[in-house]
Amino acid sequence: MSSHLGFNQYGKAESRVVRIVRDTAVHEIHDLNVSTALRGDFADAHTRGDQAAVLPTDSQKNTAFAYAKIHGVASPEDYALALGRRLLEACPAARQAQVEVEQYAWDRLGDHSFVRRGGAVRTAVVTVDRDGAQVLSGVQELVLMNSTDSEFKGFLRDEFTTLPEADDRILATSLVARWQHTSTDVDWNASYDSALTTLLRTFADTYSRALQETLHAMGCALLDAQPSLAEVRFSAPNKHHFLVDFSGFRVDGLTNDGEVFVAADRPYGLIEAQVVRDGAPPEGDAWLAVPGFC
Amino acid sequence: MSSHLGFNQYGKAESRVVRIVRDTAVHEIHDLNVSTALRGDFADAHTRGDQAAVLPTDSQKNTAFAYAKIHGVASPEDYALALGRRLLEACPAARQAQVEVEQYAWDRLGDHSFVRRGGAVRTAVVTVDRDGAQVLSGVQELVLMNSTDSEFKGFLRDEFTTLPEADDRILATSLVARWQHTSTDVDWNASYDSALTTLLRTFADTYSRALQETLHAMGCALLDAQPSLAEVRFSAPNKHHFLVDFSGFRVDGLTNDGEVFVAADRPYGLIEAQVVRDGAPPEGDAWLAVPGFC
Amino acid sequence: MSSHLGFNQYGKAESRVVRIVRDTAVHEIHDLNVSTALRGDFADAHTRGDQAAVLPTDSQKNTAFAYAKIHGVASPEDYALALGRRLLEACPAARQAQVEVEQYAWDRLGDHSFVRRGGAVRTAVVTVDRDGAQVLSGVQELVLMNSTDSEFKGFLRDEFTTLPEADDRILATSLVARWQHTSTDVDWNASYDSALTTLLRTFADTYSRALQETLHAMGCALLDAQPSLAEVRFSAPNKHHFLVDFSGFRVDGLTNDGEVFVAADRPYGLIEAQVVRDGAPPEGDAWLAVPGFC
Amino acid sequence: MSSHLGFNQYGKAESRVVRIVRDTAVHEIHDLNVSTALRGDFADAHTRGDQAAVLPTDSQKNTAFAYAKIHGVASPEDYALALGRRLLEACPAARQAQVEVEQYAWDRLGDHSFVRRGGAVRTAVVTVDRDGAQVLSGVQELVLMNSTDSEFKGFLRDEFTTLPEADDRILATSLVARWQHTSTDVDWNASYDSALTTLLRTFADTYSRALQETLHAMGCALLDAQPSLAEVRFSAPNKHHFLVDFSGFRVDGLTNDGEVFVAADRPYGLIEAQVVRDGAPPEGDAWLAVPGFC
Repeated sequence: MSSHLGFNQYGKAESRVVRIVRDTAVHEIHDLNVSTALRGDFADAHTRGDQAAVLPTDSQKNTAFAYAKIHGVASPEDYALALGRRLLEACPAARQAQVEVEQYAWDRLGDHSFVRRGGAVRTAVVTVDRDGAQVLSGVQELVLMNSTDSEFKGFLRDEFTTLPEADDRILATSLVARWQHTSTDVDWNASYDSALTTLLRTFADTYSRALQETLHAMGCALLDAQPSLAEVRFSAPNKHHFLVDFSGFRVDGLTNDGEVFVAADRPYGLIEAQVVRDGAPPEGDAWLAVPGFC
Repeated sequence: MSSHLGFNQYGKAESRVVRIVRDTAVHEIHDLNVSTALRGDFADAHTRGDQAAVLPTDSQKNTAFAYAKIHGVASPEDYALALGRRLLEACPAARQAQVEVEQYAWDRLGDHSFVRRGGAVRTAVVTVDRDGAQVLSGVQELVLMNSTDSEFKGFLRDEFTTLPEADDRILATSLVARWQHTSTDVDWNASYDSALTTLLRTFADTYSRALQETLHAMGCALLDAQPSLAEVRFSAPNKHHFLVDFSGFRVDGLTNDGEVFVAADRPYGLIEAQVVRDGAPPEGDAWLAVPGFC
Repeated sequence: MSSHLGFNQYGKAESRVVRIVRDTAVHEIHDLNVSTALRGDFADAHTRGDQAAVLPTDSQKNTAFAYAKIHGVASPEDYALALGRRLLEACPAARQAQVEVEQYAWDRLGDHSFVRRGGAVRTAVVTVDRDGAQVLSGVQELVLMNSTDSEFKGFLRDEFTTLPEADDRILATSLVARWQHTSTDVDWNASYDSALTTLLRTFADTYSRALQETLHAMGCALLDAQPSLAEVRFSAPNKHHFLVDFSGFRVDGLTNDGEVFVAADRPYGLIEAQVVRDGAPPEGDAWLAVPGFC
Repeated sequence: MSSHLGFNQYGKAESRVVRIVRDTAVHEIHDLNVSTALRGDFADAHTRGDQAAVLPTDSQKNTAFAYAKIHGVASPEDYALALGRRLLEACPAARQAQVEVEQYAWDRLGDHSFVRRGGAVRTAVVTVDRDGAQVLSGVQELVLMNSTDSEFKGFLRDEFTTLPEADDRILATSLVARWQHTSTDVDWNASYDSALTTLLRTFADTYSRALQETLHAMGCALLDAQPSLAEVRFSAPNKHHFLVDFSGFRVDGLTNDGEVFVAADRPYGLIEAQVVRDGAPPEGDAWLAVPGFC
């Protein structure tokens, strides 16, 4: 029998990089979770145990920390581009570097005091080749709810279908969204802020006949609002909120008219979808090995 | 040999109660995680398998959901008091009911649209007896950081001490705090908002010679600000942020002057402390079996 | 207003200590999660920012690692006793040291190769004073199921009770159990192995009219089997397995006669109970601040 | 601007299906976590809010439970194939159904008593088209360690490289592995047992010059042992165990000769690789949207 090495990549995952900017008495904080991966001609490490071409994951980690100072963190995208380019430069065998960044937001309490905001986490995935780069911006753990203006009916029924049609239900999700830029010449922070505003406003304003329809509306609105985006991808668990059945309770006049729900953990519906601009350029390897989006 | 049943309690943990108030077109949301426990004379269930005195945990859960409607959720404390009293009434064998509530905050996006805020979670623990009740309010997952004005030096050294003294370090914690009221006649929401403000302001304003000192200052400030509180308890992991060592990097002029840190996961320092008002009334069973505070 | 410092303790939590014994070509592994805490006269650190009496948590961590070599890990209890005594010796202001150990089991694949076993985690909590020590042994994440011989009926009913009586249900729990020794002159490994055997056998052999009854039987059996134990404490979530309702499925002859269940996450019943030997000596501070058991 | 719907799928994730086989007094348990997804022509749901073609995720869940009885769970692969085929049959608009199964192992304590084994979780991913099916078997959470016979040296060095070469280190990983079958006519349980044996034995027997080399050897061994496999894919975090520095401890004769390590959480190296049989048939959509392997 004979076999060959297929796709492979290696890197350092989840370096928790915290950069404090203390040029003035009013400090700033950039709080990141950084993962890097290199792809290229590393077959000798796999098949012969020869590390000559391998830039250690420890060095990748060191670079991630150093670049928080050397380059700074104007935005996760900008930082990731610089880090990815550096890794390619440092490792001749690499054809491609992918850098994933999660950024945790903090609110200011004082000149050098902060409280972590929680909620949505901003993300960036940058894939750098020797002749260019692809950038995905995104958000995760964005937990959204509409307490009405959501229905689900007219669906296909089979022998195992017992779900009643719903005219008025809760729609809730913990959204993961990523969108691909067609350029690296972007004001990343302005683009992100605008994207988040668009997503939130569209979620709130869309009457939903299914989570799919809401996501599609959000994707279209985002592509409309930012012409430099090529596509949007969503991974959206349908966080079920089931109306609690009060019918067995022996309390006069007690009803549950869409007021009391149990928030369920598992199972959950899971809707995944892309909305792509007509005529968008080829996506390249932007989405390769991106968890939940490949 | 002979043995006897010691302390025991039983209940339903982590009912995820979501109450939507939809009396007008502008909905409100109360998003709770509710745990109940009963204590009393339930020995027959343990020793003889006789359930005659046992109100099922399923019924406790049902009551938690029903009371979100019947009583409503003006505040987690108020809801928990009503629920605890009801459980005692429904279960003659119970001597005491303890109700724990976590409340997740949401921000408004529209009349019936919300985005979960994340960050700190408001808590309440209510212990109801046949002749009264004790109330603990609190907060958890309150992640705080001072990027300077923190030192740690002058400590005891033994053969295994290698820690250098620190004149300027990051101080960060994910605080769990609870405080005991001396009354149940309280404007719970106003008290909570005020407490949070006091804790945040004191954390920001205190020069810290150790996390212990910061916590103590926060506790004193809270007791000062609210005369009706008897005591405050803290459980505070010292979320270590270690300065990254740049000395081995061969980059001219590259230094790390308190700017780049690695946020460590484990191990972590863990500081637990109470600040008690002089002359406070007996605490009763308020803290009995409260995770992390007993 | 005036206030005072109440109960307090500090230490280093969750040091992940891995000791490899490589005295021969056949290696052994001891894989531990170690938490230490000191209690005593540390008021100056809280109220005056004076660390002179404080042995840093960093030094406690260093000691935990060093003692895995200096003393070794014959058992988690033996290691914890040695570590606790050392910490008391090193820190004159301390009145008491508490050491918690979790031990992860590995199975052997070869002379120096191992696969982690998963499943139940062995635990020890040791509380050392200047004149003695208390030892709790235990187990956690011990997930048990009886697929029949479990009922729940004859319980109290109120207006919110809708639960039907069950003649034949699944009983499942993820058990946390701890038991207190009356001596430190114990063959800890033999005692633990015996305790686990007793708990498993009693769980399997007991017809259950409620989880309470099963736990009580397990506690009594353990005290019977090991006369040197003073008491046993359990924290046992009732991991509900609900029979799936097939009645709405339009498939001829399809029934669900106790064969298909949904394993629910939340909420869950939570039963906590102690079984205490008559005439057991005072428990001292053995259980003080032990998560879930205080 | 105009856009179009790109790739999309929907389904029900993480149904916790527990099947008890109670045909005799000696019960058996099959404990599964089941996720299903449908792909096909569901554009109307996204763009027009029309659910006529949509089999609800609730019905998919119901089918997952019902099929644990109707078809049974001879193996996760066999169950998943039956479930996937049924879903395609029930939903004309679907082109493809993907079913993921995790199976948790239990050890027997008695005729109807079990203790959950913990450790490695068996997995299957089945992708069913109208004219065939692809099957991936696998394992996850397989935590492996070699306490010697592992080195890492001769690697590329750049300005940020500070890692010393290691002649003797711990090699540990929490392996996720999946392998693709070329047929559905397989004794799935025998194949899985054999695969696990091959992976464990090869891990133990391979002197490692990097985790890459060990994984490659494991993949080659698996393809050698089972001619009906087309390829193997690994995702392997390098669970770093750092030798604890005892040099600062002031204890005579205390050294750390590869005996005491700290098990680190984050960051971790992450190695991902495929080993593919030469001449393997096209992989089809077997790996499409499979978390961590696409």
